[in-house]
This record gives sequence, structure tokens and C-alpha cells, in this order.
Amino acid sequence: MIILGIDPGTAIMGYGLIEQKGNRLRALDYACWRTAAHTPLAERLLILYNQIFPYLKDHQPDQIVVEELFFNRNTTTAISVGQARGIVLLAGAQQSIPVYEYTPLQVKQAVVGYGRADKKQVQQMVKGLLGLDDVPKPDDTADALALAICHAHSFALERRMEDFR
Amino acid sequence: MIILGIDPGTAIMGYGLIEQKGNRLRALDYACWRTAAHTPLAERLLILYNQIFPYLKDHQPDQIVVEELFFNRNTTTAISVGQARGIVLLAGAQQSIPVYEYTPLQVKQAVVGYGRADKKQVQQMVKGLLGLDDVPKPDDTADALALAICHAHSFALERRMEDFR
Repeated sequence: MIILGIDPGTAIMGYGLIEQKGNRLRALDYACWRTAAHTPLAERLLILYNQIFPYLKDHQPDQIVVEELFFNRNTTTAISVGQARGIVLLAGAQQSIPVYEYTPLQVKQAVVGYGRADKKQVQQMVKGLLGLDDVPKPDDTADALALAICHAHSFALERRMEDFR
Repeated sequence: MIILGIDPGTAIMGYGLIEQKGNRLRALDYACWRTAAHTPLAERLLILYNQIFPYLKDHQPDQIVVEELFFNRNTTTAISVGQARGIVLLAGAQQSIPVYEYTPLQVKQAVVGYGRADKKQVQQMVKGLLGLDDVPKPDDTADALALAICHAHSFALERRMEDFR
């Protein structure tokens, strides 16, 4: 199964593509898409869409994973991230790729093992679980990979649980 | 000049298309796009995009106008509206149609004449200014027309001011 984690933003959008085979996870590709400062918002969204849409076509992920936006953040961020997130959901829906979402708490629990882990611990686990030489940079890319790993673990668990019913 | 006002939302998206000739405003088309309850978010965004994109192609507005999202609303709404708004901005950018935004205060000032006007007053002015028989329903549609009128007035003023420089 190929899983694409995306950490949406209008200035920088991290992504991490991983392959899951049984218990083994492998990083296939990870980086981020950026838009230049002072670019009008609509143009930024277009630039990002023009990156994501063909990326999905080329890499054919089975599932996309984004962070579930939570409600105690400030509204300015929520609007901005919401707009970028809308573009990701649209591109996924256009290609019939299901989109899953997890809270930051779920990601920490799935990747590190407990929900109060800090950013550094998550990043170290991402590096370790995927057998990378370094912690992926920038944070947005590491976060995207963490989302993909979280989904791989949770989705595998979900399926296993179904087997026992 | 053809102006399209849009009031974005994932469940209901109001739109109002007006024509401005000199001081005269005329409503060309107004209604709203809806998505069914319980439809997954990504699918809703796709449905809306599949309405907006061809609508822009068919009606060729010179400008799109949306509400400038403000920051004292609750974050849940901000995220939801943000996602729908992202789709509108994308569709506009894909067809090189510039998108303008105004605050609710600016809309009230431009349409009614003072910033503390209530919803009913705005709707009555929309009806009056466009010579409609009834107040457009639902509110989202009336709001979209108010945005378009606000832009017609403000943009005309902006150009007039430039003439005197």
C-alpha cells in the first residue's frame, strides 16, 4: 500500500510518500512544495494544485492522509490552512483517492507511543521507523511522513481488528 | 463589467452575477450551489468545484468577489469556509479571473451606507439596487449579491479616484 501524508499550508506544503508491506515501512519520496512570499493567495493555491494534482497522477497513492484541523488554534492560521487543505482534498477527490485524517494526538500516539511526545521525539521516530540517515527537513516534511506512518499503523490495526470480528 | 459575488461554504455556496454599466447595476443570475448532508468533505469540495469551474467558463465574469474572512469567528467555521473558499480562489486563478475581497463592514458601508446595518437592511438594499421583485433567498445568495454590489461601487470609486490623480 502506498500512503501519501500531506501537511498543508499556503507558503509551504510538506509531503511524504511511504510504502507499507506487511510490517515494513519504506520512504519512497518526501520533500515540500513552496510558494514565494508576497504571491497572491489565489495564485499560491493554483501553484500548489498544479504540483499536487500531477504528483497524485504520477505516484498513485492508495490513500492520502492529512492532519485533522483542531479548533484551539488561532483563526488566521485555520483559514489559511483550511484553504490549502481544500486544494488537497479536491485533488484527491478528483482522482478518487480516499483522504484520511488524524489529530496531532493520534499521530504522536501512533508514531512515538504516547500523546504528549514533543516534535523532536516524533521526528526521531520518523527517522528511525523509515531507516533514514537524517531527520527530514523542514518540519512540514517530517510532519507529513509522521501522518503517513500514523495511518499505516492505524489502518493496519483497523484491518486486523476487523479480522477478529 | 460582469462581477460574480460568491459566499463560500461547503454545505451551501451562494453566488450572484451582476452587470455594471456606468451607474446601472443589473442582476444576471443568482442562486446557490448545495451539497447533500452527510456527504464527505472532499466530495463536497469536488461537487462545488465541478459547479464553479464551468460556471466561470460559461459566464466569463471579469472579477470574482468573496468575503474577507475575519478572525473573531469560531475556528470550526473558519476551517470549513476556508476550504470552500480555497476551491473558489483556485477556480478563479485557473481561469485568470482576479479575486477581490471585502470585509462585512465594507459590504454594509457600500450597500447600505453605514457599517452597522443589519442583515435585513442589506437584503432590502440588494433588492432595491438591483430592482428585484423579492429579497433573494437564501441568505447566502443575498450575501453574494451584496458582495458583487460592494465591489461595483468600490471599484467604480477606485477608478474615479484614479482619474483625478
